[in-house]
Amino acid sequence: MDSSKNKNSEQETGVAGRRSFLGKGAALGLAGAALGLTACKEDGNKAKPAAAAGAAPKSHGTEVAPGQLDDYYAFISSGHSGEARILGLPSGRTLKRIPVFNIDCMVGWGITNESKAIMGTNPDGTLKYTTGDTHHVHGSYKDGTYDGRWLFINDKIHARVARIRMDTMEVDKITQLPNVMGFHGIFPDKRDPVDQKINYTTRVFCGAEFHIPLPNDGHDVDDPSKWGALFSCVSAETMEVMWQCRVDGNMDLVATSYDGKLAASNQYNTENAADLNGMMAAERDACVFFNIERIERLVKEGKYTTIGNSKVPVVDGRKAANGDPKTAVTCYVPVGKNPHGVNASPDGKYFVCSGKLSPTATIIELTRVLQWFEGSLKTERDAVVGEPEIGLGPLHTAFDGRGNAYTSLFLDSQCVKWNVDAAIAQFKGDKTAKVIIEKMDVHYQPGHNYSSMGETKEADGKYLNSGNKFSKDRFLPVGPLHVETEQLIDISGDKMKLIADHTAYSEPHDGIIVRRDVVKTRQIYTMTDFPNHVTPDNAGIERKGNKVNVRLMSQAPAYSMPVIKVKKGDEVTITLTNHDKVEDLTHGLALPTYNVNFIVNPQETKSVTFKADHAGVFWMYCTHFCHALHLEMRSRFIVEA
Amino acid sequence: MDSSKNKNSEQETGVAGRRSFLGKGAALGLAGAALGLTACKEDGNKAKPAAAAGAAPKSHGTEVAPGQLDDYYAFISSGHSGEARILGLPSGRTLKRIPVFNIDCMVGWGITNESKAIMGTNPDGTLKYTTGDTHHVHGSYKDGTYDGRWLFINDKIHARVARIRMDTMEVDKITQLPNVMGFHGIFPDKRDPVDQKINYTTRVFCGAEFHIPLPNDGHDVDDPSKWGALFSCVSAETMEVMWQCRVDGNMDLVATSYDGKLAASNQYNTENAADLNGMMAAERDACVFFNIERIERLVKEGKYTTIGNSKVPVVDGRKAANGDPKTAVTCYVPVGKNPHGVNASPDGKYFVCSGKLSPTATIIELTRVLQWFEGSLKTERDAVVGEPEIGLGPLHTAFDGRGNAYTSLFLDSQCVKWNVDAAIAQFKGDKTAKVIIEKMDVHYQPGHNYSSMGETKEADGKYLNSGNKFSKDRFLPVGPLHVETEQLIDISGDKMKLIADHTAYSEPHDGIIVRRDVVKTRQIYTMTDFPNHVTPDNAGIERKGNKVNVRLMSQAPAYSMPVIKVKKGDEVTITLTNHDKVEDLTHGLALPTYNVNFIVNPQETKSVTFKADHAGVFWMYCTHFCHALHLEMRSRFIVEA
Repeated sequence: MDSSKNKNSEQETGVAGRRSFLGKGAALGLAGAALGLTACKEDGNKAKPAAAAGAAPKSHGTEVAPGQLDDYYAFISSGHSGEARILGLPSGRTLKRIPVFNIDCMVGWGITNESKAIMGTNPDGTLKYTTGDTHHVHGSYKDGTYDGRWLFINDKIHARVARIRMDTMEVDKITQLPNVMGFHGIFPDKRDPVDQKINYTTRVFCGAEFHIPLPNDGHDVDDPSKWGALFSCVSAETMEVMWQCRVDGNMDLVATSYDGKLAASNQYNTENAADLNGMMAAERDACVFFNIERIERLVKEGKYTTIGNSKVPVVDGRKAANGDPKTAVTCYVPVGKNPHGVNASPDGKYFVCSGKLSPTATIIELTRVLQWFEGSLKTERDAVVGEPEIGLGPLHTAFDGRGNAYTSLFLDSQCVKWNVDAAIAQFKGDKTAKVIIEKMDVHYQPGHNYSSMGETKEADGKYLNSGNKFSKDRFLPVGPLHVETEQLIDISGDKMKLIADHTAYSEPHDGIIVRRDVVKTRQIYTMTDFPNHVTPDNAGIERKGNKVNVRLMSQAPAYSMPVIKVKKGDEVTITLTNHDKVEDLTHGLALPTYNVNFIVNPQETKSVTFKADHAGVFWMYCTHFCHALHLEMRSRFIVEA
Repeated sequence: MDSSKNKNSEQETGVAGRRSFLGKGAALGLAGAALGLTACKEDGNKAKPAAAAGAAPKSHGTEVAPGQLDDYYAFISSGHSGEARILGLPSGRTLKRIPVFNIDCMVGWGITNESKAIMGTNPDGTLKYTTGDTHHVHGSYKDGTYDGRWLFINDKIHARVARIRMDTMEVDKITQLPNVMGFHGIFPDKRDPVDQKINYTTRVFCGAEFHIPLPNDGHDVDDPSKWGALFSCVSAETMEVMWQCRVDGNMDLVATSYDGKLAASNQYNTENAADLNGMMAAERDACVFFNIERIERLVKEGKYTTIGNSKVPVVDGRKAANGDPKTAVTCYVPVGKNPHGVNASPDGKYFVCSGKLSPTATIIELTRVLQWFEGSLKTERDAVVGEPEIGLGPLHTAFDGRGNAYTSLFLDSQCVKWNVDAAIAQFKGDKTAKVIIEKMDVHYQPGHNYSSMGETKEADGKYLNSGNKFSKDRFLPVGPLHVETEQLIDISGDKMKLIADHTAYSEPHDGIIVRRDVVKTRQIYTMTDFPNHVTPDNAGIERKGNKVNVRLMSQAPAYSMPVIKVKKGDEVTITLTNHDKVEDLTHGLALPTYNVNFIVNPQETKSVTFKADHAGVFWMYCTHFCHALHLEMRSRFIVEA
């Protein structure tokens, strides 16, 4: 292995050298993309400083000194850990884990009655699901930028969308999408398609990746040609599913236009195939555009069906039903093969779709898509105004607000910076157009990338985050399972500068980087926001038959009752209100043997319900350090035999 | 609020200024310690750079440049998140989360059959516990330093000890301690007490904090005077409980001597009280020492009892049964009130116990404890050779290998550096002895601290980590629940230097900082280590009645079967072996609706078992990015109605 191959070169299109990573077993004969890779064990290449690829300044400017604050929040989805995460940038410090679809016994998510009600339970009260797979998180918009109100995040495994309120950074709603499997891309709208005065988010769009029998009840299991995938629209306010639109092919990511008129999803497997070869048979795939106004008009007019037990209106967006552009609800724009990403440029003009198995990015002009819907554009493909060759395995594209795009190249293990206007000029025939500005190595196999404020009209071109799928030799070894890398790149100058290797708990997926002034959080809760809050007036034990309500208060360093007595066999509900008012003065409640573990922040109320099936003395104790006498903060929970 | 109060001053013993934090409700009339604190909201004090407390150099040297590696591993326990964590230092990057007592749907911990077997299940196959509370993690020893073999970690809620094998950084055993509640402190031994050739860890000692009826079956629930707490010894190799020793009072942390002869636990509530006032009635508490050789001799001679259903031998270590030093198994050395911490100095001579409610650290000389056991020391208290006043709320003590100790001061929000020899001289009457070398503000309310290699004979005095319980204004706000701080302090020079505010997912508890050369990890697994591994010879579907075994292999970018068919009502076991051999080429398996989500690292095997109770087509997909066609890596799991 020759580290001199780590050069930044526009001409370097092979996958030799440090980028050879996926093993001979992964060989696939794909035209154009040399996917036949060889395994390499690079002990000699370990712990190389970034100097190997250029100058290595002593400080990269990512160190945020003790007592200083970061400039940006990064809200990131966290793959099959099921959670969301907040990082500070440029430091990369994890400021918060937000449990979403996972169980988190630190806060009691999936343990308290309140969190279970949000997550969803079986008839016996157990959680319906304990796993999740979050890929995309996006913020709500107002006037083309973030309003700091909500984050929306997907669950790919169980087709759920969750909403996080940004004042507390906690999940307050989870909605299951009916008849959807593999819910992958998610994006809020930015404006109402009809009433342009509503210049903020009211809908959340959800792309379904897998096609399945509709309904998926055991019929047609052997005939994929009868299966379908639905694009769903969820109300941002109520989180109810408003409508769905059935399409041909699989959907992947979602983007929305700044005028609110269009949403789109890049599509692979437009072949509607069920196996790998079939999914790569066609020459091109597509980016499918949705005409939101027309879909909602059809719903209003009752021109929809429903599927199985679901009452959600389903509009037909398949090609066969949408031959006439003037009435069509969908427009399938052909793009490079097996695309994995569609992103809106911050000037509001374009969506960019990358090819993945084609070394191109496809630039689609939104006014032309609207022209197609009006019947004034000849073919869907005529909406394409640029298709530069940018490198191997292009996936996602971010923007700097200065006309440049940054696309992750999975196979090349690079980030390519290219100019949108130059690509459009080149597409028109200008052979002098310099499209590619720079390619920079990332480490390694990048997936998502995203830039600071890059998905808003306020894209500021300061930072780019490259979420890489393999870290290999970038960190101290910790066994067979490696941490992945979130590489921070300074894109504010003429040249990209790799300034930090941050770590990610798998999987590094999509995220957004938000200026810190956008975020306005609460310091403590309002006690009366919780209908079951405990006050000195209603605190104590109440028994009804074998149901026992224990209403408890915490104030450092004690719970309001030193002894709680119940009888074996009782169904016990413990409700705990934290009466401390000082910011961050959180208490915990752990009850040994009974698997109870949760925290209450200042003025917050939570509850748990369980059967007291073990007799004995159980010391209920505070888990969250609160006071010099924290360790002594414990009460006796006595279950009489 | 006057930030000029943030001065480093040995004289500053009040708790005014930035340290006032715990709220009026927390007021307690304690002599000596001004615990009556007032709430303060300090908007004006936000985002102050460290410059406020001294010079703020531009770079603090904690930035590890892209491509460079950290110098140390920090293995930390993570409180009521139930996990362990590996950080790189000085960067503070999270290199790994190790699920221990929690459910982690990223790796499938608590989901796969293999992890459930380690965690423990109910008769119906569900997990016995899904919560944990880890406070202490310590490594196994050889020749007085870490051998890189194992980590041991406690669960306070459910009294379990877990072992992490350091080659894979995964839990391989969890043991429940019988008749123990509130298992808090844990420490491996360092040498055999008898056979001094065995100069490595063979035992793990566990302190129990809460006293309970023995057995805890519903009797004596109202008579705390009859309750007890047990000190447990677990075999490091088999993880079986070897013996227990009943003591008076509650136990907290554990330390062990380098000669293997002594283990000790600091004790609060020597009053055996059940409420807060009772726990603070006595003037002093104690550090209880265990004579390991004598305890094991009693066990061998059959001089023990058992409790309830447990067959573990229990030796009586209460004061009443140990009046004669020459036969005693325990020695209760009086120390400052409500201590929270006992730590061994790296020269092997002393244990230091801090007072928490007394502003002192107590230095106990181990040779004197051994003299007491020989009958040649007059009183237990005579083992104390120093008791310096060091500040308010002293908790834990770390060492630099140069004769200095560093104690966290919870109430003062400081780290105090003091000299052990000077403290001993002062105790002998030397009024010129300069004990306190320096006090430095930390932010805020420090709990545990630990130094690089500080709990070994190789203590190198490079770094100190201060795990602080409140971060308040140190990070961008993320709602009512704040992240906590792990502050990194450079202790290599004459003055302590605060060099980084790292973040911790609660709770920041104890940890160890280990030189990177100590750790030797595996890159991939050995397939045959898994008895149920799947090969081309046994892959496929096998049905026995309604039990269906699906034996599956993964190799990027495909599973070995594109279609798997079962019948509704079948009990399905999917076993997946990853046949990829390239380091870090991990695959995932997610099965929608069936709540299946786990990963397999290269050459690893895992399995899940579930009832196929929903008919339909379910796309089983890879969750862990593996290849350019990762997204296309999916098979159809078909459940026929």
